[in-house]
Amino acid sequence: LAVLGAPAIVIFGAYGVALAAQQHTGEAFFAATHRISEARPTAVNLAWAVQRVLAVPAEHYLAEAQAIHAEQRDVDRRIGAAAIELFPAHGNVLTHCNTGPIATGGDGTALGCFIAAHRAGKALHVFADETRPLLQGARLTMFELREAGVPCTLIVDSAAAITMARKDIKAVVVGADRIARNGDTANKIGTYSVAISAAHHGIPFYVAAPRSTFDFALADGSHIPIEERAADEVRIAPDDAVYNPAFDVTPGHLITAFITEYGILRPPYHESVPDLETRPRFLVTA
Amino acid sequence: LAVLGAPAIVIFGAYGVALAAQQHTGEAFFAATHRISEARPTAVNLAWAVQRVLAVPAEHYLAEAQAIHAEQRDVDRRIGAAAIELFPAHGNVLTHCNTGPIATGGDGTALGCFIAAHRAGKALHVFADETRPLLQGARLTMFELREAGVPCTLIVDSAAAITMARKDIKAVVVGADRIARNGDTANKIGTYSVAISAAHHGIPFYVAAPRSTFDFALADGSHIPIEERAADEVRIAPDDAVYNPAFDVTPGHLITAFITEYGILRPPYHESVPDLETRPRFLVTA
Repeated sequence: LAVLGAPAIVIFGAYGVALAAQQHTGEAFFAATHRISEARPTAVNLAWAVQRVLAVPAEHYLAEAQAIHAEQRDVDRRIGAAAIELFPAHGNVLTHCNTGPIATGGDGTALGCFIAAHRAGKALHVFADETRPLLQGARLTMFELREAGVPCTLIVDSAAAITMARKDIKAVVVGADRIARNGDTANKIGTYSVAISAAHHGIPFYVAAPRSTFDFALADGSHIPIEERAADEVRIAPDDAVYNPAFDVTPGHLITAFITEYGILRPPYHESVPDLETRPRFLVTA
Repeated sequence: LAVLGAPAIVIFGAYGVALAAQQHTGEAFFAATHRISEARPTAVNLAWAVQRVLAVPAEHYLAEAQAIHAEQRDVDRRIGAAAIELFPAHGNVLTHCNTGPIATGGDGTALGCFIAAHRAGKALHVFADETRPLLQGARLTMFELREAGVPCTLIVDSAAAITMARKDIKAVVVGADRIARNGDTANKIGTYSVAISAAHHGIPFYVAAPRSTFDFALADGSHIPIEERAADEVRIAPDDAVYNPAFDVTPGHLITAFITEYGILRPPYHESVPDLETRPRFLVTA
């Protein structure tokens, strides 16, 4: 968890293979790439990035990792551009966790959408969930929004519902760690709760994510592994039992649309986007 | 906020009047009782307790406050007894914030329900929301449940929805600060979010509260004042803007039933319970 955000995990996974190749050979190298692939069980695109680097000749590992990094920045730019039309000229929006430059290596996914709309002249005000237990929203999202000049207000996670009811929230945008074929989406713990509240209030709920986050091999979210993390992140008394899932799965039917580098995707998703190739040349732009 | 929990606020409000009468006379005394009445704008029964003490001769203020305290303990016992039938022989339940002995001066309201069911031989396991920003669930509820011998697990607030989805939650029980005639209920921030998630999962959502919490003068929750508290409770960076409502209002239609000292109440609530008298003799038991 030293690296957060699925896109950043992709970049670090790719560079990790290149680095491992400089330090290990033979069995030790393959063991190292396996450890990298399995480091975060919920993020599908980590294994994708590792496989993609391994598919080129060893002397090109570093160049391939750099290419993935450059592509991720371009993907963020395209996601932000696609999102602009979804927002009104002015109004309040809401997000959960962190999906900005720190998480993606580019402008961000969900946060990149807000930043792109802000640059396009839309007067958005972002309500940011603090995102317990690790407070990525309070520590990172608020910082990045202020850096980008986007007006923002911090709330505790459990205030999201009353904020929707009383602050006229126009849209919710979050990121994703893994998306199944039916749209079921694993993302930071609390995303599911926000999605239920958005549906209850009739507020559009968007997931901003690159194509590499979609895992069409999974029919639905019931098979997405959920990482459970240490009780120490939450508990106060030493003998407290804690249930601390790092992610939850939001059913696809609660998601209004996905915002990707290919534009706004609505169901059925697997007919809307190109197949995921090991080396998706279509991601490389001039 | 040094005193939390609507029932505890009643007790402290009643003793507060008796104490103020020993320290002040005339205008200063009335100013003091006014300050006590207005100390927590969301809790309706604070003003009720102050009025009730003021209605007796001054030399009986302390005895009246002690009577209110004894009645509150009895009310808790009745609420717990009424709740037992609502729970299965064994299973998981969920609560938000703190409603135990520390909050009520008795066995508690929502927590008193779990404790009563546990003593009646029902094998309940309580999932307790930590309840940001002040962490009453992590600091108090977990402590009180362990003291009472009730098995319990701590979760972050935003994990309530996935816990409902994956841990087969049989019922949610929370307390209340103020209940309008149509059942709209003001309670600790996050209650509304939990109620929406419970409804989404088809899980019964109960509010355990004494009769004194009902405010039939209010047609609905839109007129319940919501206390907004200091940004310092939430923010990390000094320049962060924060929206920090201490309470939210859960619409009555999301509430399965109320658990009171008169038993299980379903709509229309104002026909189900006796009128609130200034001095409700019917609360006094042998």
